[in-house]
Amino acid sequence: VKLLSSEELETALRDIGARRYHRLHPFHGLLHGGKCTKGQVQAWALNRYYYQAMIPIKDASLIARCHDPAVRREWRSRLVDHDGEREGDGGIARWLKLTDSLGLERDYVTSLRGLLPGTRFAVDAYVHFVGEKTLLEAIASSLTEMFSPVIISERMTGMLANYDFVTRETLSYFDVRPPQARRDVDFALNYVKLNARTPERQQAVLGALEFKCDVLWAMLDALYHAYVAPKQVPPGAFVPEDH
Amino acid sequence: VKLLSSEELETALRDIGARRYHRLHPFHGLLHGGKCTKGQVQAWALNRYYYQAMIPIKDASLIARCHDPAVRREWRSRLVDHDGEREGDGGIARWLKLTDSLGLERDYVTSLRGLLPGTRFAVDAYVHFVGEKTLLEAIASSLTEMFSPVIISERMTGMLANYDFVTRETLSYFDVRPPQARRDVDFALNYVKLNARTPERQQAVLGALEFKCDVLWAMLDALYHAYVAPKQVPPGAFVPEDH
Repeated sequence: VKLLSSEELETALRDIGARRYHRLHPFHGLLHGGKCTKGQVQAWALNRYYYQAMIPIKDASLIARCHDPAVRREWRSRLVDHDGEREGDGGIARWLKLTDSLGLERDYVTSLRGLLPGTRFAVDAYVHFVGEKTLLEAIASSLTEMFSPVIISERMTGMLANYDFVTRETLSYFDVRPPQARRDVDFALNYVKLNARTPERQQAVLGALEFKCDVLWAMLDALYHAYVAPKQVPPGAFVPEDH
Repeated sequence: VKLLSSEELETALRDIGARRYHRLHPFHGLLHGGKCTKGQVQAWALNRYYYQAMIPIKDASLIARCHDPAVRREWRSRLVDHDGEREGDGGIARWLKLTDSLGLERDYVTSLRGLLPGTRFAVDAYVHFVGEKTLLEAIASSLTEMFSPVIISERMTGMLANYDFVTRETLSYFDVRPPQARRDVDFALNYVKLNARTPERQQAVLGALEFKCDVLWAMLDALYHAYVAPKQVPPGAFVPEDH
């Protein structure tokens, strides 16, 4: 294993995205191509809610481990993005507008009663990873955001064109994410390039991004298994009306 | 929520098993009924290896949190069962005989390189649960062993009858498990009955067993998705020759 230049490290990170980011998962092909039933879109939004809800927990646990006020301040903007400045504001509230508009009861969504265990285990694995690995790996695991503007643009276009139950208002969460993601990525990618200056640390960074891609992928595997094929919903999880 | 008698609590626990234990999962129907390819049996054994390998970690973390020497001593027998008294002895070594005999390279199995992320996340969720919840919940989560003698007997009979690549020697892991499981269950069930004496603690015990059933179920969901239908292997995971 040799030391990579900053440019080589970024290329290696982008290569992981090109091979393993969940944009390539068959469920996203169905979702964005208008091939999902309303029940499948509901199941997607319901399960993804748990990911959204845990992001500030994950980010706060990263801040809690960081002894550099400059990094903590920078990372704090992610808490603001997701939790907002007041009730009804921020990414989680916007995600609940999406589940509202899909006809899901808000109490049911936030109770997590209908969540797939596979979703819970994957998201919790991410939260534990950020709390237990090195700060460098924790920061590197956020870098899937490098690849999110493309998938968000495909999602907005595809869902608006294909589903009569989806409106621009429904998707307001995604409207605000790309500039936030770009700002976050600028910081995290720069941090990783500056701090991964041994081959071992560079490999740890690449491993962290692969791990995070696995998390996002496993969430869609669980969704596909339960709601697309073979449509085997695990005991206790959400069953759409059109299942 | 009312207080249950010991007998009612045991009945409620057995009812969870009857509804949610992974004996009911379609993958086990295929495995035990001779409907799996050799590659699917390999994938099952490879993934289940990670569960086996993490069991002593889970049990040691439970012992590490327990301030009663009598309980620690009792629980220590589980470490002996899985790690053995010497190299080549114990449940993990016996599981590796199974993967050996299925033609999997031992280094590949133990490297975990081919593991499904869904397996990893489910097993890690179990380890975290035992390390983070109350001792009572940690002990209660082991109670899926109440239901294991039946599934092991079905598995031995079904696999020996249906697969020419499976021998009694291959399945030696399962030969020794039922008496160990019975001893473990006697202790854990008694502990739970004695220590869950409020409605809240009884509900926590029932929730712990449901959680553990979800872990085992999610492992088979991941396996089914990757290797049975729609046979979508996540990036980087094991691909059998006959896939």
